[in-house]
Amino acid sequence: MDIEARAHSEHPEALRLWLRLLTCTQLVEKDVRSRLRERFDTTLPRFDLMAQLERSEDGLKMNELSRRMMVTGGNVTGITDQLVAEGLVERIDVEGDRRAYRVRLTAKGRRLFNDMAREHETWILDAFSALTEREVATLHRLLGKVKDHARGSAEVSP
Amino acid sequence: MDIEARAHSEHPEALRLWLRLLTCTQLVEKDVRSRLRERFDTTLPRFDLMAQLERSEDGLKMNELSRRMMVTGGNVTGITDQLVAEGLVERIDVEGDRRAYRVRLTAKGRRLFNDMAREHETWILDAFSALTEREVATLHRLLGKVKDHARGSAEVSP
Repeated sequence: MDIEARAHSEHPEALRLWLRLLTCTQLVEKDVRSRLRERFDTTLPRFDLMAQLERSEDGLKMNELSRRMMVTGGNVTGITDQLVAEGLVERIDVEGDRRAYRVRLTAKGRRLFNDMAREHETWILDAFSALTEREVATLHRLLGKVKDHARGSAEVSP
Repeated sequence: MDIEARAHSEHPEALRLWLRLLTCTQLVEKDVRSRLRERFDTTLPRFDLMAQLERSEDGLKMNELSRRMMVTGGNVTGITDQLVAEGLVERIDVEGDRRAYRVRLTAKGRRLFNDMAREHETWILDAFSALTEREVATLHRLLGKVKDHARGSAEVSP
């Protein structure tokens, strides 16, 4: 490594950690995407959207749904339209607000989501199967510190 | 939590860890994207592309460059064209292959990249500043186990 390359690597530990974090996330996400496609002919944004609705018996307004999505890049309105057309999701009126509606899983959508979620869980379990229970707990705790710090920074920045 | 919701949560630790990993990556990435825009009026894929070239004195062929990119979603050919137009990157012929070329940082591109990399490093250092040196090392090691397992799985799967 020459001097110029070293010049901006005084803190290689944090940089190396960041690249590894990014790599791990991408590897697991790529695996989940390809399994969702193979096993359920579906995409990660569709799965993610249904996962958010699964946690809300009463459904969610569109802005709330967008806010809760874990993966980026999906078009929430477009995906909702598709899922409505497939009978997996339904739109329901919001009392007292003629222009607003909520989106909710149908019984069929809930059944399909439960099937997908059960398998998804085995994929995730496999992704972390190289770790002991104690290591999973440690990783969770340390990433919690990173998350809290990032959340804190986001709140004080303009 | 009702029984149905619990049914696919027999292993909440791994799932919770995965969601936290995803959240951390997204928070840091979002911060880096917004700082690159504010400070250098540039994007993460552009920075990423220049970072890959910075490590290769002799430049990279396009397929090699695409393979090394850390962030997804960028159009490598389109970004290269932009950077060439701005004099930050240049195309050079590959000896013995009339149709192929390599892409390399210009001196101007290298100077700009070094400025960006120095600041980028302080952002990353800040992102992990809630951790002690020892915790950074632990996180790096544990994520290494996850990465190796994921790489191994990717190789044996069809």
